[in-house]
Amino acid sequence: MRVDTDPYLERYAARVRGMRASEIRALFAVASRPEVVSFAGGMPDTSVLDMEAVEAVTAQVIREDGATALQYGGGQGREQLRELLVEVMRHEGVPGRTDELIVTVGGQQALELIAKCFVDPGDIVLAEGPTYVGGLGALNSHQAEVRHIDMDADGLRIDLLEDELARIAADGRRPKLLYTIPNHQNPAGVSLTVERRHRLAELAEQHDLLILEDNPYGLLDFAGRTNPSLRELIPDRVVYVGTVSKTIAPGLRTGWIAAPAPIRDKLVLLREAADLCPSNLTQMIVERWLVSQPWREQIKRFTTVYHEKAEAMLGSLSEHMPDGVDWTVPAGAFYVWLTVPAGIDTSDLLAKAVNHRVAYVPGRGFYADGNGGQQARLCFSYPEVARIGDGVARLGELLHEELDLVRAVFGDDVPPARRRHEGPTGNRGG
Amino acid sequence: MRVDTDPYLERYAARVRGMRASEIRALFAVASRPEVVSFAGGMPDTSVLDMEAVEAVTAQVIREDGATALQYGGGQGREQLRELLVEVMRHEGVPGRTDELIVTVGGQQALELIAKCFVDPGDIVLAEGPTYVGGLGALNSHQAEVRHIDMDADGLRIDLLEDELARIAADGRRPKLLYTIPNHQNPAGVSLTVERRHRLAELAEQHDLLILEDNPYGLLDFAGRTNPSLRELIPDRVVYVGTVSKTIAPGLRTGWIAAPAPIRDKLVLLREAADLCPSNLTQMIVERWLVSQPWREQIKRFTTVYHEKAEAMLGSLSEHMPDGVDWTVPAGAFYVWLTVPAGIDTSDLLAKAVNHRVAYVPGRGFYADGNGGQQARLCFSYPEVARIGDGVARLGELLHEELDLVRAVFGDDVPPARRRHEGPTGNRGG
Repeated sequence: MRVDTDPYLERYAARVRGMRASEIRALFAVASRPEVVSFAGGMPDTSVLDMEAVEAVTAQVIREDGATALQYGGGQGREQLRELLVEVMRHEGVPGRTDELIVTVGGQQALELIAKCFVDPGDIVLAEGPTYVGGLGALNSHQAEVRHIDMDADGLRIDLLEDELARIAADGRRPKLLYTIPNHQNPAGVSLTVERRHRLAELAEQHDLLILEDNPYGLLDFAGRTNPSLRELIPDRVVYVGTVSKTIAPGLRTGWIAAPAPIRDKLVLLREAADLCPSNLTQMIVERWLVSQPWREQIKRFTTVYHEKAEAMLGSLSEHMPDGVDWTVPAGAFYVWLTVPAGIDTSDLLAKAVNHRVAYVPGRGFYADGNGGQQARLCFSYPEVARIGDGVARLGELLHEELDLVRAVFGDDVPPARRRHEGPTGNRGG
Repeated sequence: MRVDTDPYLERYAARVRGMRASEIRALFAVASRPEVVSFAGGMPDTSVLDMEAVEAVTAQVIREDGATALQYGGGQGREQLRELLVEVMRHEGVPGRTDELIVTVGGQQALELIAKCFVDPGDIVLAEGPTYVGGLGALNSHQAEVRHIDMDADGLRIDLLEDELARIAADGRRPKLLYTIPNHQNPAGVSLTVERRHRLAELAEQHDLLILEDNPYGLLDFAGRTNPSLRELIPDRVVYVGTVSKTIAPGLRTGWIAAPAPIRDKLVLLREAADLCPSNLTQMIVERWLVSQPWREQIKRFTTVYHEKAEAMLGSLSEHMPDGVDWTVPAGAFYVWLTVPAGIDTSDLLAKAVNHRVAYVPGRGFYADGNGGQQARLCFSYPEVARIGDGVARLGELLHEELDLVRAVFGDDVPPARRRHEGPTGNRGG
């Protein structure tokens, strides 16, 4: 049995209301035990990689060009790599040119640099509700005022975005940007429909809105489908972020930004102030991987595994969840977004869940405004497929117990839901 | 002959007064030609490394623990690595505990995170004059008001620091921190004497001053000597930065911060917002290098090579430089700081120098306030030793020509020096 160590849990838990550092650490220690099935960390299953190929590629880089691999490099990243990343984008239909790209330390550094470039303290930034905790981290560290726009099964609700833009304009203000993950969103597990992409593009034109399009999961559709990118629809209004963390491996810490030239130049200066340059070694490993390995096939192997795990999770949810629990049905990537009945708080429940040998990330981690108390993110990409059913059964058992408690206290008079917004629900698979 | 590609030159040149991006790029393209001897980039000589050992260590990491190496890790960095970095610090006499360390993407990310943690726009930050261009980059990107304190052959002038602290207090203000590189300073090539370290520690206590001690070069003393660190003298007032970029290799992008616990916790949160975590792969390569390779001997091999190159440069400077040119005599690391006579501007001269097939970094790159017009940094660590003499001879020839021009125009009536401050000079080796 593999040990589900989970470096992610701690940083998510830090956003959960009311938990102290010491409690988080204690919880983290327990959640990392092998007997706990962790649906917390948003980690790819690196065991799917051909390790012999990785070893061969890496050794070759050092043998043939070690002095360069171990030296400093340029702040924009290696041209050879950027050329190949343009091919990766093209595989998904996203347009791009080598000179428009900046290689970053994973997608997270891309988000940080873009936040540093655009966000002044107090600036309004629009984002999906819920949204990626690392995106919130980057935005918050530059003191953005994040306003969430609710989602449904079709992704970001463009009607609500339009309302919010009108409200902001009525206040005589302007949002700095919209942060969106259109494909297989983290944590909601839903994608923006094609029709809504076009409506979003029109709205962006009308309101002169800058869009931060974060796309870690676009190539992980279970059926191999792709959607038109916002970068394709409105290239001048989009700063695009990609990463190899989910298509090759996160340990290579390689992501990128594609941006119009004036923004690119600013971002390169900020990146040099941030860490001088990305590692030549890891860049050259990615290059050689893309040149010498069947990377498109490797991505298919990943999605086949994730599809199988998603099916396992969805089947178990239907089997084990009590009435009143709802969840999204992902068509790709890593995540199911769970909504529990009113009266249960997923932050409060986490310690009990870990005690029941199952872990998740409480929904509040994905909101800047305290919402998400009735939600949880379940990530199915990392645990072994055979353990997913066990984990879901344990969570189901706990939720049954909790609901019995709620009913014992309140009878049919369940307490009102704490969340103000509607989240993406209603596509329950059962 | 090795090609002296120079990713550094562009970022330094960007700080040089009056140069446009297009000019910088053109200059950079020329300076990267193999016939140019570049003293510009502050790059270690990675050809000194045992590449077979690097290849073996890397392959072993992937073979034995590939799934971990390619996965996400924790934001503070791997505990195993931090333990070993404490040993590296101890080798230099710097105290530290595993839990006080944060692994960063090179020393540059350490500087960026510390700047982000402490510096609000307009805050006064004290720094040596001249100082590391990347330190200035990190501080400027957070809109610090950098005030330089002059140096001499014994390092930072503590008497001038005391004056500046008094001036700031008289204005009712406080400096956020003092940024210092006490050992073999970049770019000045001088070290802070032991006596001044003690005076600096006293001053810091008196004025409640936080010190950012940046120590990339402490283990590169040509005679293997070490100095007491400020962290040793006043641990509670020091945030310490180390890196393996000069003792192993910069392509591994591995540095670290050692800081008191409350500061460490803030920095870990900022690091997670910045790029989630350092690469497990490169961390594990560094770990295995430190565990399995004779790293202390490797550092000696580096310093032996750099000592030989320093001697070559100092000998050639004595032979080829015209009267009125002065330079520092380094006892370790990478750099000679050159001062040319009044009437010559090193920024203006750079294009001509590159035309003469020699490159350096103009002194203005190392000041936030426009000083340094009569200075240049010559880095001897990277070019092959046989080419150093040629490069210095070309620069000497150019300076002779320029001085003839200055004399033809002004006669004995040389124009006044443009710099307000005294820099470290007066230890001319000739």
